[in-house]
Amino acid sequence: MLFTGIGELVTNDPAVGDGSMLGIVRDAAVVVGDGRVLWVGPALGAPDADSRIDLGGRAVVPGFVDCHSHLVFAGDRAAEFAARMAGTPYDGGGIATTVAATRAASDAGLRGLLARRVAEMRAQGTTTVEIKSGYGLTVDDERRALRLAGEVTAETTFLGAHVVPAGADRDAYVRLVVGPMLAACAPHARWIDVFCEPASPHAFDADEARVVLEAGRAAGLGVRVHGNQLAAGPGVALAVELGAASVDHCTHLTGADVEALAGSDTVATLLPGVEFCTRSPYPDARRLLSAGVTVALATDCNPGTNCSSSMPLMIALAVREMGMTPAEALWAATAGAARALRRSDIGVVAPGCRADLAVLDAPGHLHLAYRPGVPIAAALEV
Amino acid sequence: MLFTGIGELVTNDPAVGDGSMLGIVRDAAVVVGDGRVLWVGPALGAPDADSRIDLGGRAVVPGFVDCHSHLVFAGDRAAEFAARMAGTPYDGGGIATTVAATRAASDAGLRGLLARRVAEMRAQGTTTVEIKSGYGLTVDDERRALRLAGEVTAETTFLGAHVVPAGADRDAYVRLVVGPMLAACAPHARWIDVFCEPASPHAFDADEARVVLEAGRAAGLGVRVHGNQLAAGPGVALAVELGAASVDHCTHLTGADVEALAGSDTVATLLPGVEFCTRSPYPDARRLLSAGVTVALATDCNPGTNCSSSMPLMIALAVREMGMTPAEALWAATAGAARALRRSDIGVVAPGCRADLAVLDAPGHLHLAYRPGVPIAAALEV
Repeated sequence: MLFTGIGELVTNDPAVGDGSMLGIVRDAAVVVGDGRVLWVGPALGAPDADSRIDLGGRAVVPGFVDCHSHLVFAGDRAAEFAARMAGTPYDGGGIATTVAATRAASDAGLRGLLARRVAEMRAQGTTTVEIKSGYGLTVDDERRALRLAGEVTAETTFLGAHVVPAGADRDAYVRLVVGPMLAACAPHARWIDVFCEPASPHAFDADEARVVLEAGRAAGLGVRVHGNQLAAGPGVALAVELGAASVDHCTHLTGADVEALAGSDTVATLLPGVEFCTRSPYPDARRLLSAGVTVALATDCNPGTNCSSSMPLMIALAVREMGMTPAEALWAATAGAARALRRSDIGVVAPGCRADLAVLDAPGHLHLAYRPGVPIAAALEV
Repeated sequence: MLFTGIGELVTNDPAVGDGSMLGIVRDAAVVVGDGRVLWVGPALGAPDADSRIDLGGRAVVPGFVDCHSHLVFAGDRAAEFAARMAGTPYDGGGIATTVAATRAASDAGLRGLLARRVAEMRAQGTTTVEIKSGYGLTVDDERRALRLAGEVTAETTFLGAHVVPAGADRDAYVRLVVGPMLAACAPHARWIDVFCEPASPHAFDADEARVVLEAGRAAGLGVRVHGNQLAAGPGVALAVELGAASVDHCTHLTGADVEALAGSDTVATLLPGVEFCTRSPYPDARRLLSAGVTVALATDCNPGTNCSSSMPLMIALAVREMGMTPAEALWAATAGAARALRRSDIGVVAPGCRADLAVLDAPGHLHLAYRPGVPIAAALEV
C-alpha cells in the first residue's frame, strides 16, 4: 500500500530528508506491507503498489509512543480533580479510591474500558502504549491487570509497588510484592516499576524501591522507575544505578541527577499532563536536553493525576512550559519514548520498522503545538 | 425528537435541577423540534416524541459559544509561533503576513477554509461562533470578509481597526475605517470592534478607538473592544463608557478597570489560548468573578496568537491557570459568552431556546477540565 501526497513526512531518521533530527521529507510517500514500512522517500520516486492513498498534502509523523500509562482502572476521580483545583494538595492518597473501584470491576468491564481507552488513544495518533498495573495491589488483582493489559499491548509493566495499600504493613507488603506477587505477575509483564517517592507517605523509599527493582530484574523484567515527582529524591540515582530504561516524572532534579542521567542510557520521561492536572511546576526539559539527556514525553494517563490521553497536548505543554522546541517535543513523543521502551522498531519511519504512523490534519508537525487542543492527529490505518 | 439517557444535563438555568448556577439535571431528557428546545426535565417524566435517541449516560451541556474569533484568514503562521516559543516577542506585527495571504485568496478559497473551520469547531462542541474581519484592511477586502463570515454566522464583527496597515498614515487610515469602509461593511456586520492597545505600535490608542467605536455605534452596530491584552491601558474604561457588550482579553487590569466592569453590563471575555500560545501571564479570572464581573471564555482562534479552536481547552486552561472552578469555566464558555453577544436564546437549555447542544463522551461536565486535550465534546446534531 502506497501513501502519497504527504506534504511533510517526519521520519526521525537523520540520514534522510533535510538531515535534521526529525529527518523531514517534503512531498513524500511511504510504502507499507504486512505491518511494516517497506519504502520511504520523495513521492516522485515512489515504487508502484497494489493500492494507493493520497493524503492531500497532510503531514505524516511516526505514531506517538505513550511510554507511561495506567489504563487498567475503573471509576474516575473527576471530583478529586475539582477539589484539587480548589486547593486540596496531591500526595498520592487518592490511589486507594481507584484500587477499590478496580478490584470491584469484572474482567469484562475492565476489558471494555481498556479497549475504549486504547481506541481513544489511536484516534489521537498513539500507536504504542505502555500500560502499568498498580490498582490491584493483591496477587490476583495485579496478575489480572497485567493479563488484561497484555491483551492490548506488549509493553506491560508490573507496578505492584505503586503504593502501600491502606492499612498494610510496609515491610510485609514489600515482601508480598517481591515474593508471590512478582511470581504471579512476571509471566505477564515486560517491565518492573516502583513509585520511589519518600515525600509521599504512600510510596516507597530508596531501600524499598531497590529491593523491588532488583527482584524484578532477577525475574527477567526490565527496570523503570517513577521518581522525583513530588520532590528531589533518590529515584533518579537508583534508576541510573540499576540501568533502568527510563525514570519517569523527573520534575525535581538536583545537578547530580542531571549529570547521572547524562552519563547513562536511562531516558528521562517527562509527563507534563501531571503538572497540568495537579497545578505543579513543570520539569525543566531544556536543562536535561542541554546536558545531553535523552528525553521522552508521555501522558501518564490515569484517573488521579492526569486523565488526558492526548499526546498532542503533551507536545504543546512541552513547548509552552518546558522549553522544548516543537521538533524536540515531537521527537521525544516518538523516538525518545521508543528509547524509553528500548524499542528500535517504532518511533521512526524507515524500511523494516513497524508501519505505525500518525496522519495530521495539517501541513506540518509544527501544528501539533501551534493548534493545542484541536484533534488534528490520528493513527493512520494501514 | 427526544434525547434521553442523559447522565448529566447542564441547563445553565438555576430554576431547574440542582439549583446551582449550572442548573444540573441528572438522568435527564430533552425534547427538540424545529431547531428549538421544547422540553427539559428528568427522563422519567419525558413526553412522547416521534423519534428517540438514547445517549447512554453521556453528559449534555449547552453548545459552546465562541464569542471571539478571526476565522476569515488564509495561510498559517506556525513558523512565527515556533520562533515566538524560541523567544521572539509578540507585538501584533505578524498580522501583516496574514493580511497579505488573505487578500490574495479567492472567495472560493476563503469560503472553503471558513467552512472547514466552522465544521472543526462544531466537531468540538461549538454551536455559535462570532467572526471578525480585520485581515482585509481595505474597503473591498473587509466587506468581502464580512460577507463570507455572514454566510456561516449571524455574529459578524467589523474589525477594520485591527491594525494600521504597514506604511499607511494612521489618521488617514482611521478616516478610511469610519468613512467608506464602515459604510461598505455595516450592512454585513452586527458588531464593531477595535484593537485598542497603545502598547502595540500597530494598534489604536484611546482617541482613535473612540472615533471608530462611536462611528460604528452611529451606524447601528453593537460595540466590542479588544483591550488590555499587552498592558494595562484605556480599553476597558472605553468599553464600559460606550456600553460595549464585551471587552476582550483583559489580561492586564487595574483596580479601577475591575471596578468599572463590575458596575457595568460589559462582559469581560477572557481568551486563555492567547496566553498559552504567546507564553504570557494569564488573566486573573478569580479577581473578576470576586468583584461580580460577568466573565466569558472564547478562543480568539486566529493564525497569529492562538490557532486553537478548542473551547474545551479554554475551559481546562481557565481552571488550571485562571482560578475558575470547572462550573464557572463551563458557564463562561456558554451562558457568559452568550451574554457577551447579548443573546438570550443560546448558552442555556430551556424551552424556547435554540436547540444548540453539545454531548460529552463522559459522565459529567467536570471531564472537560479533567481530561484536557481529549476530544470528548461534539455538537449534538438535532
